[in-house]
Amino acid sequence: MTDNQSDRMKGVLAPVLTPFDAEGKPDPVRLERICRWLISHDCGLAIFGTNSEGNSLSVPERMDLLDHLVAAGLPVHRMMPGTGSCSLPEAVSLTRAVVDHGCGGALVLPPFYYKIATDDGLFAFFSELIEGVGDERLRIYLYHIPPVTQVGFSHSLVERLLKRYPGVIAGMKDSGGDWAYTEKTLSLFASSGFDVFCGTETILLDTMRRGGRGCISATCNVNPGAIVKLYDTWQADDAPQQQEALNVIRSSFAAFPMIAAMKDAVSVALGDPGWTRLRPPLQELNNEERTSLRCRLGELSFDLTGISPD
Amino acid sequence: MTDNQSDRMKGVLAPVLTPFDAEGKPDPVRLERICRWLISHDCGLAIFGTNSEGNSLSVPERMDLLDHLVAAGLPVHRMMPGTGSCSLPEAVSLTRAVVDHGCGGALVLPPFYYKIATDDGLFAFFSELIEGVGDERLRIYLYHIPPVTQVGFSHSLVERLLKRYPGVIAGMKDSGGDWAYTEKTLSLFASSGFDVFCGTETILLDTMRRGGRGCISATCNVNPGAIVKLYDTWQADDAPQQQEALNVIRSSFAAFPMIAAMKDAVSVALGDPGWTRLRPPLQELNNEERTSLRCRLGELSFDLTGISPD
Repeated sequence: MTDNQSDRMKGVLAPVLTPFDAEGKPDPVRLERICRWLISHDCGLAIFGTNSEGNSLSVPERMDLLDHLVAAGLPVHRMMPGTGSCSLPEAVSLTRAVVDHGCGGALVLPPFYYKIATDDGLFAFFSELIEGVGDERLRIYLYHIPPVTQVGFSHSLVERLLKRYPGVIAGMKDSGGDWAYTEKTLSLFASSGFDVFCGTETILLDTMRRGGRGCISATCNVNPGAIVKLYDTWQADDAPQQQEALNVIRSSFAAFPMIAAMKDAVSVALGDPGWTRLRPPLQELNNEERTSLRCRLGELSFDLTGISPD
Repeated sequence: MTDNQSDRMKGVLAPVLTPFDAEGKPDPVRLERICRWLISHDCGLAIFGTNSEGNSLSVPERMDLLDHLVAAGLPVHRMMPGTGSCSLPEAVSLTRAVVDHGCGGALVLPPFYYKIATDDGLFAFFSELIEGVGDERLRIYLYHIPPVTQVGFSHSLVERLLKRYPGVIAGMKDSGGDWAYTEKTLSLFASSGFDVFCGTETILLDTMRRGGRGCISATCNVNPGAIVKLYDTWQADDAPQQQEALNVIRSSFAAFPMIAAMKDAVSVALGDPGWTRLRPPLQELNNEERTSLRCRLGELSFDLTGISPD
């Protein structure tokens, strides 16, 4: 199979929120429903990301949820599941499952336990991962998120990986929160088949203007339509105004613990109190936060368009 | 079963190095051998700690290695396996296996992916862990290592856990590298059945003088006899001289990447080149480091007493 850039993933993806049932287990039925809603807005599915509480799930839980979504007929070419782990064999197992299902890509964190990891050590980890999966269909998106992992991808490491595994190293989700890094990544690699997705829609316009491929952002869970619209029309005259409007919504959620706030909003839209559950160590909003968030969203006349009807 | 303080774990334990075979899989036979050697020096087995590359192992790998060591007849009451995970159900499964085997305790990291975890969230994690295991034989040792996890145990969190789960919350391995914290932990909790193990033998004498229960330290893998001797004779006149001597050995290893350096020393002592392997992202010493380490240990006339003969 030749690596055709036009086959590659692009656009807007949500790190899909993971709902839990009353026993604290992941709820595949609730998950399927939000995935269908996101897809209906042309928003792809980056399940098992940071905002999915992906690393709070066990390996079998991730496998089972992916199996469920695929069996339910959700489009695999729009799926970029998180398959990172501190443990190489776990990362291999998860990534192989993603490839076997025909997913568009795998979003892979660096191993994040040891903060002393070197570029050589990270290169070895990704080499063994790629060779362990051993499948030419594999497309890896490097998940750069040093504010959480502390361990990130230096540009020289990206360069080495890209040179050694062209095509397989397909791009990056950049959640570093450092525009200088993002800009340099785009200028160094965007023209050589390395697809950069910004990790927040607040820099979507700037990212697209510099050759980025799209956006994978928390708030896509609750505002997919408007974010997809900016992606589709970033060259239009009103793009800066669209960007402004996205930023207002984003900041309304970011004033709270993000995952809890988004789950609360989904819970309200669906009239489903069970949607607010998180898995420890994360926790639901407290009453004060909940009241404040709902008030803020009310003032903005913000609702999750279309999520409610079944 | 009443919680008898005299039944509780104490003394010196090694976060046992994990050997890997040529395919990169954990090697149970090599592991069993070093465990026997450690036990012969009266050194307990804190398998699956940081220096064991515990978080680089998959859950089934940890389960299988534990099964092997127990089946091999190594003393379970001297075992304190690491059972932490970012994923609560994984922590429950691992901890339950440890209790089912009758191990002396479980060494539990806080979930370490989200750096925004609050004390309330960590309390909820440990509550669900303890209730999920649901066994009165459970003894949890909190693994405090903020330099690696970034997430640690505040004294108010320890107090809440100890109050809610007396007996089950049995103590702490303190690898924080902050003596003021250690001293305060000892003064607040050591007299109420909370057993503090220092995370480096460089503070063993100070820890024992303030009511600590022992030491779980990297270097116990290569210097168990001398560390156990200081633990046994900390009230003797020559204890400060013993402490000095331990510090010299420690600093010789700490000048290098510690895990790689200790594996190199074991490899030399056993004449087994395969012992040097680490799992990515960690890596073996390079040639320069190896030469320098061996030279340094030679100058100290340091060898791993008694490890060589089978």
